[in-house]
Amino acid sequence: MSGIVKTPQPPYYAVIFTSQRTDGDKGYGKMAEKMEELASQQKGFLGVESARDNELGITVSYWDSLEAIKNWKENSAHKVAQEKGKAEWYTNYSVRIAKVERAYSFET
Amino acid sequence: MSGIVKTPQPPYYAVIFTSQRTDGDKGYGKMAEKMEELASQQKGFLGVESARDNELGITVSYWDSLEAIKNWKENSAHKVAQEKGKAEWYTNYSVRIAKVERAYSFET
Repeated sequence: MSGIVKTPQPPYYAVIFTSQRTDGDKGYGKMAEKMEELASQQKGFLGVESARDNELGITVSYWDSLEAIKNWKENSAHKVAQEKGKAEWYTNYSVRIAKVERAYSFET
Repeated sequence: MSGIVKTPQPPYYAVIFTSQRTDGDKGYGKMAEKMEELASQQKGFLGVESARDNELGITVSYWDSLEAIKNWKENSAHKVAQEKGKAEWYTNYSVRIAKVERAYSFET
């Protein structure tokens, strides 16, 4: 998974997940990969963009509806990951659910 | 500037800027810093979150209205930076303007 997602014409939805990690991997990398794979199999998934540096991680996933987002939030494997996230991987995070109303892009 | 922004209760707006850089700094770091400073002085600015790794940069800025976003887009110093961005700094980028409808966070 990498790069900028080719999303359809708006409207669609974005989940902006911003996080700060605890020290050490503690199984995070493997689980993150697994979650991305699982998410991409969900109905309504449009793509995901991720970047992480020493201060912050930002993952934006795109979805065709609020229902698709809700279904993913309640996915049982994802729920296990969410609990591990709170217990071990993140010192803090923020989740924002937003409706993309306009979009444009630039390519060389 | 760092960390997760304390945004007000939704609704508010997010500009999701995802980019891939050309090689080398070419004045980018300095300009990025300057733009962040300028943006933070704009009316309606709520905060910004940024992360960049080798593959992708994601900057999400938060605003209280579409008008505030429009004003920032049309800011003259910002326009100069936008042109430099296309000419020198980015191989490609995507801008998505979204209305944040729901948000929650976690802190240890």
